[in-house]
Amino acid sequence: MRVAVLGVGLIGGSIGLASSRRLDARVAGYDPDPANLERGLELGALTDVAASTAEACVGADVIFCAAPVGALPGLAAEALAASGPDAVVSDVGSTKRQLVAELSGGQDGERFIGGHPLAGAETSGVENARAELFDGARWYLTPTEGSSGVHYDRLQRAIGGLGARPQAIDAGSHDRVMATVSHLPHVLADVLVSQAAASLAEDGERMPEVGPSFRDTTRVAGANPAMWRDILVANRDAVADEIDAVVARLNEAAGLLRSAEPTAIESWHRGARDDRRRLLDAGVAGGPVTELRIVVDNRPGTVAEIALALGRAAVNIEDMALYPASDMSSGAVSLWIAGEGEAERAVEVVRELGHAVTLAAES
Amino acid sequence: MRVAVLGVGLIGGSIGLASSRRLDARVAGYDPDPANLERGLELGALTDVAASTAEACVGADVIFCAAPVGALPGLAAEALAASGPDAVVSDVGSTKRQLVAELSGGQDGERFIGGHPLAGAETSGVENARAELFDGARWYLTPTEGSSGVHYDRLQRAIGGLGARPQAIDAGSHDRVMATVSHLPHVLADVLVSQAAASLAEDGERMPEVGPSFRDTTRVAGANPAMWRDILVANRDAVADEIDAVVARLNEAAGLLRSAEPTAIESWHRGARDDRRRLLDAGVAGGPVTELRIVVDNRPGTVAEIALALGRAAVNIEDMALYPASDMSSGAVSLWIAGEGEAERAVEVVRELGHAVTLAAES
Repeated sequence: MRVAVLGVGLIGGSIGLASSRRLDARVAGYDPDPANLERGLELGALTDVAASTAEACVGADVIFCAAPVGALPGLAAEALAASGPDAVVSDVGSTKRQLVAELSGGQDGERFIGGHPLAGAETSGVENARAELFDGARWYLTPTEGSSGVHYDRLQRAIGGLGARPQAIDAGSHDRVMATVSHLPHVLADVLVSQAAASLAEDGERMPEVGPSFRDTTRVAGANPAMWRDILVANRDAVADEIDAVVARLNEAAGLLRSAEPTAIESWHRGARDDRRRLLDAGVAGGPVTELRIVVDNRPGTVAEIALALGRAAVNIEDMALYPASDMSSGAVSLWIAGEGEAERAVEVVRELGHAVTLAAES
Repeated sequence: MRVAVLGVGLIGGSIGLASSRRLDARVAGYDPDPANLERGLELGALTDVAASTAEACVGADVIFCAAPVGALPGLAAEALAASGPDAVVSDVGSTKRQLVAELSGGQDGERFIGGHPLAGAETSGVENARAELFDGARWYLTPTEGSSGVHYDRLQRAIGGLGARPQAIDAGSHDRVMATVSHLPHVLADVLVSQAAASLAEDGERMPEVGPSFRDTTRVAGANPAMWRDILVANRDAVADEIDAVVARLNEAAGLLRSAEPTAIESWHRGARDDRRRLLDAGVAGGPVTELRIVVDNRPGTVAEIALALGRAAVNIEDMALYPASDMSSGAVSLWIAGEGEAERAVEVVRELGHAVTLAAES
């Protein structure tokens, strides 16, 4: 098998590594930055370095376009033009509708099948590439009515071989889902942070040392501006529709608050709790998790001590948040543990270390 | 000095402990649940147990009402009625305007001064009380034009003695600030989670295993329904106004997206980044922090190893987030480190352990 990787960063490099090690493929790569090609070759992500997109595509069976979202339409069209009739061309961009519409209608459009692996958001660069990046990860594929079945089959087999779980989805549904669970949270974080800045300035107050709610909710505000510009532009219709829906819900919430009906307010708020639990159970972080809150000294080493003891007890920590007191002398640690037996074991372990621990009221 | 604590939970108990140890005060307590009184006495948070609110207030110099927000107006009025003309009555509730309006106009209103310590949100219950809880924490006080200077002075001295930093603020400003930085994030989390549930159901899709943006942004959704019902009811006007302001911003954002102007979209998104940095620099988490992203095996013990090594290097971890890969075989850890020299030292330490580490692109 011959794989071509157009764009050799974290995702392209990891596709290369997994293809070479698991599919025993030859991997030709092209990247506008020669340093990425050199590094990809050194790391074993590429077996061959090409001098152009077209050269990388010659003789390839599967071609992955792994460039920024804004560059994908041009790149994929080039790949279709440069590759033979048996080659399937795909991409790894996080929005799909526009790209698929542009390419599937064009020349050789039946050989283009959009893709989006849910992996790798946490780092970037070919130096962080690893063959295991896609293990168990969902990898959306967006075939259309015009897609060739043979090419789709070859692509989804290759992706399974990389360790991922391919899942077909309509490009429009894909973009709506991503708008809801990824793009909209970024927009809300942006809006909240701007609103807070304006509101505090108006009252002449400085930011209070509040708890984690503001910090968590705004963590992704203004993330990677160039990348998010491309994503928001490419998925603008779905994101704008989601914003409209959220505006309707917020207007409802404001009305509810102004009604001052405690029971209705509580039941509205409880609804969100139920919704989140249902969503979490269905997927986020791989199942239901229990939150443990531990009061600790904030000296260096305390967190390590707890994590070590849990490691010895074979309890894996799903997520963790530290809430230092404002003078840094003490604080709390929240640990999220998956599985009921595991959470109980974790409580015992932490108690034995002498820390106060409580199971957080059903977060 | 004689202190009365009405409501013996985390906050009331910690006030008791700090008063007894640091102000050498006698601390009388009352709580509707006798178990809390007993436990408070055992832990040294109380020196005297009262049989009623009124009994606890007899002879007290400073009285803290530490009950849920909804119960505060009645409790504080009772405390004013039961206490002598020298006693100052305060509270620890997280909304202030309505309470202050009700009490400062009433009988003995000049002796009531609202308060709100920014501490302790992470746990609850008298068993977690500690004398150090307020060390260095901001403690808002909301005197009015009618407040007695003598009583205000006594209260703010006592609060300084507990280890906190008292700061006077107009009750209306206080509620607007808290609406923005605490109550609004909760409402947005609720709305986002409900919108996601509805949107996924409509497309017949299940929740994808997305990165941390959705998890972080919705972490507080549906938190503690009874407590949040009270807070939202008490601060409904300010929160509803903040919601209106956010709706205006969201409508603007939707319009901007539909305009499909990449430059304008990027500059809007960049603005949020600048706002967040300004807010963070001004206070959240105690100053500018650097994010380190580390790729790790997800085996139990890795996080401990990193935390331990940083502890030995005297680097304190401000915040931490784990992003496990969906098969839990590998993942990434984000560490937030305060101080520039500290962050560089942390990078070195982590590299020496053999992990790939990058400074996150200016989050």
